Amino acid sequence: MPKIVDHETRRQELIKASWNVIAAEGLEGVTMRKIAAEAGCTTGRLTHYFADREALILASLRASYDVTGERARETMAKNASTQEKLLQFVEEMLPADDERLREWKVWIAFWGAATVDPILAAENDARHEAWASELAEYVGDAAPKSNAREEADLLIGLINGVGLHAAVNPTKSNLKRARSLLRTHIQQLVA
Amino acid sequence: MPKIVDHETRRQELIKASWNVIAAEGLEGVTMRKIAAEAGCTTGRLTHYFADREALILASLRASYDVTGERARETMAKNASTQEKLLQFVEEMLPADDERLREWKVWIAFWGAATVDPILAAENDARHEAWASELAEYVGDAAPKSNAREEADLLIGLINGVGLHAAVNPTKSNLKRARSLLRTHIQQLVA
Repeated sequence: MPKIVDHETRRQELIKASWNVIAAEGLEGVTMRKIAAEAGCTTGRLTHYFADREALILASLRASYDVTGERARETMAKNASTQEKLLQFVEEMLPADDERLREWKVWIAFWGAATVDPILAAENDARHEAWASELAEYVGDAAPKSNAREEADLLIGLINGVGLHAAVNPTKSNLKRARSLLRTHIQQLVA
Repeated sequence: MPKIVDHETRRQELIKASWNVIAAEGLEGVTMRKIAAEAGCTTGRLTHYFADREALILASLRASYDVTGERARETMAKNASTQEKLLQFVEEMLPADDERLREWKVWIAFWGAATVDPILAAENDARHEAWASELAEYVGDAAPKSNAREEADLLIGLINGVGLHAAVNPTKSNLKRARSLLRTHIQQLVA
């Protein structure tokens, strides 16, 4: 009997390998050869899943956003309070453990690449739109008098800037400051 | 008579060449060979000013922050109103022309490199501290009842996140949104 190969599972493993390489070496480290080595396969096998380096980077980024979004949604669903949902959302976005720090490193690497790649730049806009329109619903529930979409744009900007600082140098004090700034902002927004 | 070589002027020219390469190709493009080509000199000449790639990147980043800071200070000094000073500050920080967009590309490239380089990460913290403590004085003048240092940290985070989005894809609508978010934030802070 032929070995059953789960295409999607294998694809996810390759994407995880690319996250590890990006997090360890930055986007400069991303070569098809290195990702293949990290995943324990040949570059030929890798190109079976991703045509080239750019396709792999794009897939890697999309998967990273998807994972973070799914985790944030699950956490928010557990809370009944609208304020607590937003507080949990920002907590989920902080680079407070290895997994989330790795996600941040992938995003930062991606932003750098997107400044010189129009396809990645358009992808960044699309992801921002998706996040902001989803987040605006939570903001509207928690702060009905606010301009929910504007506040969602601002919150994403704040998370990106404040989280970036904590992710670049993930010291306890940088993380503590990021958390405090974001929590205070949510509390003022909801008040 | 020997040719008079202005060491500092030449150094600045080499740094500008590195900005151009980083802005055009990302940090991945930064090799000593490429910077030398952009500056129209030999790599031997370049290493006379910067020992290696990392020294050049660090100098390039510091110079970029210095230029931006100096321009922001000059603009703020022209305004008497404390609110207007802050509004001008955020305007100066937007990637609204080629020069400032290039600065953003340098910063974004630097953040990416800093996630995998402790020396650059420490430099990022030091630059944040310097900016935040300077900005806190302006915030304290414009909004005396606020926690000026916290608001300065938050404002820098917001500028970085909102400006990043506009710099990654510098469309008119992204720039307009970034400006609007930052101006509204300042107006609410000062109110």
